[in-house]
Amino acid sequence: MIKKIKKVALFGGTHGNEMTGIYLIKKFLKNPHLIERSTFDIFPFLANPKAIDLRVRYVDTDLNRCFDQRDIDNLDHGLYEQLLAKTIYQKLIKNQIQFLIDLHSTTSQMGLSIILSDTNSFHLCLVSYLSSIYPELKVLYYRSERENLLLRSSTELGLTIEVGPVAQGILDATLFSQTEQLIYSLLDYLDNYNQEEIADLPRKLTYYEVFKTIDYPRNHQEITGMIHPTLQFKDYQPLNPGDPLFITFDGETITYEGDTTVYPVFINESAYYEKSIAMCLTEKREVTVNMNQE
Amino acid sequence: MIKKIKKVALFGGTHGNEMTGIYLIKKFLKNPHLIERSTFDIFPFLANPKAIDLRVRYVDTDLNRCFDQRDIDNLDHGLYEQLLAKTIYQKLIKNQIQFLIDLHSTTSQMGLSIILSDTNSFHLCLVSYLSSIYPELKVLYYRSERENLLLRSSTELGLTIEVGPVAQGILDATLFSQTEQLIYSLLDYLDNYNQEEIADLPRKLTYYEVFKTIDYPRNHQEITGMIHPTLQFKDYQPLNPGDPLFITFDGETITYEGDTTVYPVFINESAYYEKSIAMCLTEKREVTVNMNQE
Repeated sequence: MIKKIKKVALFGGTHGNEMTGIYLIKKFLKNPHLIERSTFDIFPFLANPKAIDLRVRYVDTDLNRCFDQRDIDNLDHGLYEQLLAKTIYQKLIKNQIQFLIDLHSTTSQMGLSIILSDTNSFHLCLVSYLSSIYPELKVLYYRSERENLLLRSSTELGLTIEVGPVAQGILDATLFSQTEQLIYSLLDYLDNYNQEEIADLPRKLTYYEVFKTIDYPRNHQEITGMIHPTLQFKDYQPLNPGDPLFITFDGETITYEGDTTVYPVFINESAYYEKSIAMCLTEKREVTVNMNQE
Repeated sequence: MIKKIKKVALFGGTHGNEMTGIYLIKKFLKNPHLIERSTFDIFPFLANPKAIDLRVRYVDTDLNRCFDQRDIDNLDHGLYEQLLAKTIYQKLIKNQIQFLIDLHSTTSQMGLSIILSDTNSFHLCLVSYLSSIYPELKVLYYRSERENLLLRSSTELGLTIEVGPVAQGILDATLFSQTEQLIYSLLDYLDNYNQEEIADLPRKLTYYEVFKTIDYPRNHQEITGMIHPTLQFKDYQPLNPGDPLFITFDGETITYEGDTTVYPVFINESAYYEKSIAMCLTEKREVTVNMNQE
């Protein structure tokens, strides 16, 4: 069992062109009572102010890939976001943050998603509770390729809220409001948990576990095709062997050659072209979760 | 009557993060027969290679606001796009370009749109013909605030193809294919026109004329609200006095206070936040066009 949660951090603007999180944090900085709860302290932060000013994802490198402990400890790194990550990490230590929420948006049709790097029972009970309130909420389990690479995994407990589709640099009022409500419910849960007011029922949970990424078709570096129109905006929907994945610029269809049904996410995410990711493939998991389970 | 069209230029990547035009131009550079027609020469260009490499709209300033003749003639301007505009302008002169097509995309729900800076009868006949083939095609008449500011207005005849919604930095296969077909039909029209094979019928045309832009609600520079959810993705649809325009971050609705029904376009275009444009208001025009009319 995890002890009480006394210190929570809420981040937006880890990517400077993902406006939903940025304007939610600005709202909370102006109206702190909205996120204050009786049993914990909460610290809202704008993670990358320089990228936010420039309306770009990052200045030198992706901040959300700078939190590996070896990178944090490496004093020879000099890129802007590498330096910034060290000060954010120090802030987390100094404020003894136990739980971290990182707000993101995507050009993919991922609706309202929570992404976990760790399926401990605290995380699973929390998301199964939130799923019971928001039936449209999707839960994604995405371990980074290196341990604790991401901001959400730099504290004992943490998660990403990922919403879309929304273009970079714009606000969508519906997604803004849905994200805001989800944050309030999440904070209420932590507050109730601290007061031991969470019924310790077994709950059913569906989540999607990323096991592989797929790149665009390419000729050397240059992409030679696009997400197939039948797959565009079909995040979390089943993709079967033989289903279309891509259409080349010459009109040829490329199909999925796997053996089993999978569930793609991050389909056509703008920022992932440079990471050689056209989509992430997941497997669907149905589990029963229970707070005392470890 | 306009004389024959002997030289045509086709531009993509005037904004380096609008991928539809960029990848269409790359396709045409690789497969020139797709855009060649018997009665004219066609020159495909990638307008801003440096911005394309960086996957950004522009490096120093918006290239598509650098074509005013006074700016072209001003040899003291030193921003990257100001210099680039001069070389593009020289290319247009050197190749004696009479007709220019500039390919753009938008985060607004503008479907398949053609934008004109000039409603001469050649332009109107062309777009009325294209509208008869593509009933979903919308025609926008948008004079720039200064004469001939835009790339499309730097030659005798020219237009922008604007498609959306699509996030910056991504390709949407459906919009890619629709834009490609529209280009072929447009080139076929020019070819038929040169061969005097266009029936000189009066044709009905609906177009939308921009008369005003509206900014987001702001407190000094900082925006204080978003496009209202009932208006998001409602480009070209009627907006009546009293209809919601914005919702503030505090949840207050701001309504349209004009006297007449208008038709907003470029609603929530990502690149227009910095231009203080939340949308452009248009009036709807119904006209009958005829090739001999001047």
